[in-house]
Amino acid sequence: MDNFTFFNPTKVEFGKDKEQAIGQHLAEHGVKKVLLTYGSERIKRDGLFSVVSKSLSERGIQIVECGGIVSNPVISKVREAITLARSQQVDAVLSVGGGSVLDSSKAIAAGVRYDGDVWDLFIGKASIDSALPVFDILTLAATGSEMNSGAVVTNEATQEKFAIQSVHTFPKVSIVNPALMQTVSRDYLVYSAADIIAHSIEGYFTATVQPKIQSRLVESVITTVMETTELLLANPKDYNARAEFAWAATLALNGITYAGTSGFGYPNHMIEHSLSALFNVPHGAGLSVVMPAWMKWYHSRNPAQFERFAQQIFGLKTAEEGIAALEKWFDKIGTPTRLSQLGITAAELPAILDNLQGNAQWFGLAGTYTREVLADILKRAL
Amino acid sequence: MDNFTFFNPTKVEFGKDKEQAIGQHLAEHGVKKVLLTYGSERIKRDGLFSVVSKSLSERGIQIVECGGIVSNPVISKVREAITLARSQQVDAVLSVGGGSVLDSSKAIAAGVRYDGDVWDLFIGKASIDSALPVFDILTLAATGSEMNSGAVVTNEATQEKFAIQSVHTFPKVSIVNPALMQTVSRDYLVYSAADIIAHSIEGYFTATVQPKIQSRLVESVITTVMETTELLLANPKDYNARAEFAWAATLALNGITYAGTSGFGYPNHMIEHSLSALFNVPHGAGLSVVMPAWMKWYHSRNPAQFERFAQQIFGLKTAEEGIAALEKWFDKIGTPTRLSQLGITAAELPAILDNLQGNAQWFGLAGTYTREVLADILKRAL
Repeated sequence: MDNFTFFNPTKVEFGKDKEQAIGQHLAEHGVKKVLLTYGSERIKRDGLFSVVSKSLSERGIQIVECGGIVSNPVISKVREAITLARSQQVDAVLSVGGGSVLDSSKAIAAGVRYDGDVWDLFIGKASIDSALPVFDILTLAATGSEMNSGAVVTNEATQEKFAIQSVHTFPKVSIVNPALMQTVSRDYLVYSAADIIAHSIEGYFTATVQPKIQSRLVESVITTVMETTELLLANPKDYNARAEFAWAATLALNGITYAGTSGFGYPNHMIEHSLSALFNVPHGAGLSVVMPAWMKWYHSRNPAQFERFAQQIFGLKTAEEGIAALEKWFDKIGTPTRLSQLGITAAELPAILDNLQGNAQWFGLAGTYTREVLADILKRAL
Repeated sequence: MDNFTFFNPTKVEFGKDKEQAIGQHLAEHGVKKVLLTYGSERIKRDGLFSVVSKSLSERGIQIVECGGIVSNPVISKVREAITLARSQQVDAVLSVGGGSVLDSSKAIAAGVRYDGDVWDLFIGKASIDSALPVFDILTLAATGSEMNSGAVVTNEATQEKFAIQSVHTFPKVSIVNPALMQTVSRDYLVYSAADIIAHSIEGYFTATVQPKIQSRLVESVITTVMETTELLLANPKDYNARAEFAWAATLALNGITYAGTSGFGYPNHMIEHSLSALFNVPHGAGLSVVMPAWMKWYHSRNPAQFERFAQQIFGLKTAEEGIAALEKWFDKIGTPTRLSQLGITAAELPAILDNLQGNAQWFGLAGTYTREVLADILKRAL
């Protein structure tokens, strides 16, 4: 077990009706005027916006609206929101949406307090020394962003999908009400399942130091995600399944399962980021394509852990059997496992490989993931 | 899954040599003069005290020593320390020791900021509105106090062993260096294992709402504790086993495994608190006696979960087999399973039952745990 620091000051308010107290949480942090970020106008149609604005107005908190944040969120929108936040002199950001809205909000919060261009913070040209306080009401459980300090945003101009992370960008309060997730589409449910499993396995398989207790926690998360995904596909209104799915999503990337783990990378995310940067595929759908292909290429480098995975998750014996079972499960729930299902053909591989050069550098994996290796992995996913 | 709030702002600094930076952590919180609490003079003999005092003096932090805190810590000592802390005008408490020293330190920290008698905070006569910041260097992994806000102290005069809990008593920074635990005696290692298992099972077995994901996390903790205890009995210098054991202890009671769980109680702790209040037995030793007896009495009230326990922890089938296997394992590692091993005979049952009246009230379990029921459980432990 390697040395680690665990620090996660986010307060998670989990459960039914928790969004009704959002005004109180912001008031406790002295917020007077908030940038309310969201995606589509759906939150206005389904009543969530009115619940939130009522709670805020009861505490005398002014709202500056910033809608239109898209999946695979883009830096141009973040820049626009920073300009708005500055001109309106908001003192906090409240994200109402999924991981894309929340990640954008973290970037906005950090960007407002940084004099240069916010993309500098993603490429290491400047560090995050401060940020507006971020709050969120989560409407999709997948990214784990509600209880970590990371944020992933795409620069459309450069086709780079990079991340920030800072002690200043932990949400102050995250509202996770599984009932708000009951209307998530079947597609986004299964993409989310793939995303959570990806967060779980990156460290699990690639760490040079992987404590057994951490493997057990990861397996608990994966088993729960698989079980609850099937329950939700059968009955989207199963509140308890929705809740366990959401808590699994949070646990997969809140630092608990990674404590004491070291020497790991995020190769699946690295490859997927190129797919969504270039083709704007849903992140989870990209990941369910990448994972089986990557596993087939990688497993002989860590055979004991892949055998463990096969056994603990599927009750099977060999690494190959475990990988095949995961791929089959992805097929069963209906998340893609082939690039062709994303509309990507062999003709596009060179462009992906070009884009991956920068990603591999950014992820610190350029040594292992040469163009040749990446071509090998991608071909397995065709 | 029930509604919950998860908030745990403690920074855990885990691993080798982490105690060397203690001065830096206190300085970051603006500490100038600290009450350094500890148990025996062992920390002076083994060099830890000099490491700590060097690190503090490098940051210009003054030390006020307060040694002599005993296992099953007592309120008289807490009162004495509060007087000292006030007269010396310390601005923080640094606990160097195990759970007893840390729990005392939390009580001191809260008591300094309360005008009345500190015991008022334990009996609900007053609430904790503020506390000095608490820091700790943990030398024994068991209680989980390093990453929660609870503290258990005994009032020797009234023979009551009660607890406090407050958002103000989370440690600011907890140093958990497993290497400092290598000299823990064989006895205290196995008592600690019993304590961690007790923390794990109270919710697991008694909750009216127990999410499956939480059961899986608890099973991960228990399996790890059992595995690493055996490794440490064979080789006390196994750093990795020591580390996984310590992290399991933290996870068992830092709120993660209890999130979304509800309707549970702490009946094993309730009974054990009477044993240690009356006979000053080591807390973990008391728990390993109480648990099998309580399980034998309780299991028919939650048969599915006891069958799950038997299967997941021991690969067995029935509730009875699982309980017998745990008892056998306690016997194997050498932590007591009978009151007689603690020197307690049938003649003492009436006194224990008298003491338990108050405990059952305090734990909110008086409805179920009548004198008759408690007598039944205790007789099974003779």
